[in-house]
Amino acid sequence: MVFQDNFIVTTRGRGTSLITGDIQERVRRSGIRTGICNIFLHHTSASLILCENADPDVRSDLERYMAGLVPDGDPGFEHVAEGPDDMPAHIRTILTSSDMTLPVAAGSCDLGTWQGVYVWEHRTSGYRRRLTLTVYGDQARIDT
Amino acid sequence: MVFQDNFIVTTRGRGTSLITGDIQERVRRSGIRTGICNIFLHHTSASLILCENADPDVRSDLERYMAGLVPDGDPGFEHVAEGPDDMPAHIRTILTSSDMTLPVAAGSCDLGTWQGVYVWEHRTSGYRRRLTLTVYGDQARIDT
Amino acid sequence: MVFQDNFIVTTRGRGTSLITGDIQERVRRSGIRTGICNIFLHHTSASLILCENADPDVRSDLERYMAGLVPDGDPGFEHVAEGPDDMPAHIRTILTSSDMTLPVAAGSCDLGTWQGVYVWEHRTSGYRRRLTLTVYGDQARIDT
Repeated sequence: MVFQDNFIVTTRGRGTSLITGDIQERVRRSGIRTGICNIFLHHTSASLILCENADPDVRSDLERYMAGLVPDGDPGFEHVAEGPDDMPAHIRTILTSSDMTLPVAAGSCDLGTWQGVYVWEHRTSGYRRRLTLTVYGDQARIDT
Repeated sequence: MVFQDNFIVTTRGRGTSLITGDIQERVRRSGIRTGICNIFLHHTSASLILCENADPDVRSDLERYMAGLVPDGDPGFEHVAEGPDDMPAHIRTILTSSDMTLPVAAGSCDLGTWQGVYVWEHRTSGYRRRLTLTVYGDQARIDT
Repeated sequence: MVFQDNFIVTTRGRGTSLITGDIQERVRRSGIRTGICNIFLHHTSASLILCENADPDVRSDLERYMAGLVPDGDPGFEHVAEGPDDMPAHIRTILTSSDMTLPVAAGSCDLGTWQGVYVWEHRTSGYRRRLTLTVYGDQARIDT
């Protein structure tokens, strides 16, 4: 069976928003015990990442690293009408990901202890970001 | 139910080929209303990306950025027998993606307004690139 | 129907471990003919990649390239308690991937000739890395 739901994450400019809870709540609601959960972000200037969820320094180091890898206002960019952070946001999205498919086991997404799912906003302003979550699987536990 | 189809995209050297239409046509043909659509590229020197689909400068800026990030003919590379663009093509593929899984809703891939799916050729010559599209889901609409 | 299994890959520090055989053996065991196979790595300092599987120089060039792109011991990092290779390992994971979804056709993962699936360890020490493989599809071949 399939379960599908949409939700919005409101960002406040560059940085990460933890959505592990939003995902797990919907997977539980689906009643699916064994299968997969696809998460999709409908934008080209924010992305989905799996990141260490314990030490907030990891996310600030990541942000600082990415700002160096894809500098805002690079004079080589032609696509500048939407601001100096827009083309870098598109590149940052492509270097990370817009979709993620996770295993569902025992009725929830089977994440590692230190794995958190985050929406990573790449624009300097905040936006309403739309996500779709689709769970596919069986309601009874499958022994393999 | 499952639907699966293969198709070829013929590239003309480095650059992007829009395949959103090829995907949507096959999803419609599958008759699946709610589920997921997996797209897979069977190569290690071209990739699949979701990119802004309105301003062509975004794709040319992206190409220029990537050429700087992974320079052709890097003297550190040992894998050079297939040309100075081959090892960079493998790296560019790994920094982006070969697979993509998108939500299907109301009978088509539910992409954001500005999201286009592209095959990104990383070799300087053109190639015939093979893709497999698999749609999984239910034919009736699921209310959640 | 759904099939799910877990397995461990023991790494020996930075480098790649080929797992194509581990995957294909489980897909065959599932009995599924047509569908998708999701592979997921439950860690934030190792990743899953599809890489050229013929010339080992490709993987050593890739390793050298990544060591230059994300240098160990970068003085800008705050997250250093777990060693100079830990924050780089988190970034390398985010620039590559933790999940992969492949098409299943004729009872096995339909990979390109030169595509191998690898666990890429990003820490300088070896670890036991846990993976979950989920196959979803139909046992009979679907003609499309």
